[in-house]
Amino acid sequence: MIEDKNQSLTPLEELGEFGLIDHLTGSFKIEKESTVKGVGDDAAVIDYCDKQTVISTDMLVEGVHFNLAYVPLKHLGYKAVVINLSDICAMNAEPEQILVSIAVSNRFPVEALDELYEGIKIACQKYKVDLVGGDTTSSTSGLIISITAVGSVKKENQVYRGGAAEKDLLVVSGDLGAAYLGLQVLERENNVFKVNPNMQPDLAPYDYIVGRQLKPEARIDIISLLKELDVKPTSMIDVSDGLSSEVLHLSKHSGLGFKIYEEKIPLDPMVIRTADEFGINPVTCALNGGEDYELLFTVAQSDFEKIKGNPNLSVIGHAAEKNSENYLMLKDGDSAVKLTAQGWNSFERD
Amino acid sequence: MIEDKNQSLTPLEELGEFGLIDHLTGSFKIEKESTVKGVGDDAAVIDYCDKQTVISTDMLVEGVHFNLAYVPLKHLGYKAVVINLSDICAMNAEPEQILVSIAVSNRFPVEALDELYEGIKIACQKYKVDLVGGDTTSSTSGLIISITAVGSVKKENQVYRGGAAEKDLLVVSGDLGAAYLGLQVLERENNVFKVNPNMQPDLAPYDYIVGRQLKPEARIDIISLLKELDVKPTSMIDVSDGLSSEVLHLSKHSGLGFKIYEEKIPLDPMVIRTADEFGINPVTCALNGGEDYELLFTVAQSDFEKIKGNPNLSVIGHAAEKNSENYLMLKDGDSAVKLTAQGWNSFERD
Repeated sequence: MIEDKNQSLTPLEELGEFGLIDHLTGSFKIEKESTVKGVGDDAAVIDYCDKQTVISTDMLVEGVHFNLAYVPLKHLGYKAVVINLSDICAMNAEPEQILVSIAVSNRFPVEALDELYEGIKIACQKYKVDLVGGDTTSSTSGLIISITAVGSVKKENQVYRGGAAEKDLLVVSGDLGAAYLGLQVLERENNVFKVNPNMQPDLAPYDYIVGRQLKPEARIDIISLLKELDVKPTSMIDVSDGLSSEVLHLSKHSGLGFKIYEEKIPLDPMVIRTADEFGINPVTCALNGGEDYELLFTVAQSDFEKIKGNPNLSVIGHAAEKNSENYLMLKDGDSAVKLTAQGWNSFERD
Repeated sequence: MIEDKNQSLTPLEELGEFGLIDHLTGSFKIEKESTVKGVGDDAAVIDYCDKQTVISTDMLVEGVHFNLAYVPLKHLGYKAVVINLSDICAMNAEPEQILVSIAVSNRFPVEALDELYEGIKIACQKYKVDLVGGDTTSSTSGLIISITAVGSVKKENQVYRGGAAEKDLLVVSGDLGAAYLGLQVLERENNVFKVNPNMQPDLAPYDYIVGRQLKPEARIDIISLLKELDVKPTSMIDVSDGLSSEVLHLSKHSGLGFKIYEEKIPLDPMVIRTADEFGINPVTCALNGGEDYELLFTVAQSDFEKIKGNPNLSVIGHAAEKNSENYLMLKDGDSAVKLTAQGWNSFERD
């Protein structure tokens, strides 16, 4: 769980709650002008002047969202921040601040939380967001992380899920399915390790997809790119639960159906190769896998010239008529499959 | 756990995550003009125009912060909201929105969450705040609630912990120690019940203190009162961990010590009577008990005429010199005890 196995470990109760908060957050620097008051009072104070506040929250639970057997705490801290910033990006907004709450059992020493916060800090530095609050408490079992991300956006730049119009193009950034397959590889190697602890996993052939699982990025660069290209999406969402689920969200909120084309879905060669190795269809990984944190959005057809050929963007389909269903058009060109959400449901029993 | 024992119960997986969110939040109405976009997109959007955003978050963990054996879920939902709004009030700000994340094990049916959200809704209605987001996921054990509260305040009305000046008066709203004693009564009755399930607890003689534990209120009325009286506190905090701990926070942030007077600490007669029954000093309950959610603040001496005699406010001491220690002046008039934080540390092992 902790990288340096030889250091002496500090029990959490030695610091107490306020001591722990000071210890964990003391070295975070404030970068944003909008941060008027950060950690240390009853609440943080933020001032965006003429912009609107955008706010989102996500909770990660040990044993449900992550397994510390193969997820380093530093990566976990980084990822927990990123998935929240991704939600802010999906509003076409700029991430500005985060609040981090953790509940943690006494089995974690202070040094474990230091690693977690190291990852949080790296994410804060990379994305230039300020840690401005949170809560630190004990749990009866395991680690729970709840992060709230705050961003700002000018009223006229706001993009919702519900703005797609008929014939708008459906666009996705990056490629899909890799994070899901990365998780499959990690779980397989972990099972091998449990049977034979002397077996060292060789993850090198899977570096890209394992990286996509352990250290995803929020596509803030795509938000900047779209501004540079002078393209304002008509609707947008981030791909956390799988392409299928996200298309259905845009469809429901915008009141129209989408057609997406199997052959247009961007897949990395390693995704295709690894899916083959696991005997699954890579398109299924893209549709139902999730955790890619790419941006899925619609643009007016008149914007096609501005985005075409951009290696970061793939046009994968288009909006159809009002109240129509959502279809995946298969490669053969003749058949179509109705899209259903097979995304992740954490309440399903095994 | 659920009030009507005869209803048929719905397993969580039947609704799935998005179905559950719709089910739980669908009946919440938006009341605030500042709420531009609520539940249902990647993030909520808030617009305070010329005001600043104030934001705070708190996490409650089953088995650490509450025991469902004697805390009804409806009360828990209400209290979880209130303790977050209390933090917003402690900034002299107006609560506007909340985000609610829960992690819950499969042993909870949908109806249990309905009760929790009923309490959340009653709090939203009473305090006129909007539920604008959150996350709903499963846990491996128990219930975890993480709430983020958002408020607004004009720049010139902002009150921090660090603004107290020498000779300022230290004032507390309401009375102290009741919530702690209410918890002692509930735990005693629960232990009796475990030994003999036929014993029905008679909580009537303890109604006020049990109510203070189960259904605390955020003192938004005190914020309004101070505005009416034209009094702006120089520093403020809410009493969540006990008077002692909060005085030390104001002291640390303001860089000076406080003297508080034992005889001035407001205690309800039921607190005095019940403390006597448990063989503890009621002043100790006020100093170290916590969960009163009253407001502790300092005002300039020149404001004394405006607040004196107000039944909601007690002057309990004053700020002393820069960098001095914090003392409780005892009733005998001769002796003083140095204040130390003996507030709650959730990381302590039993």
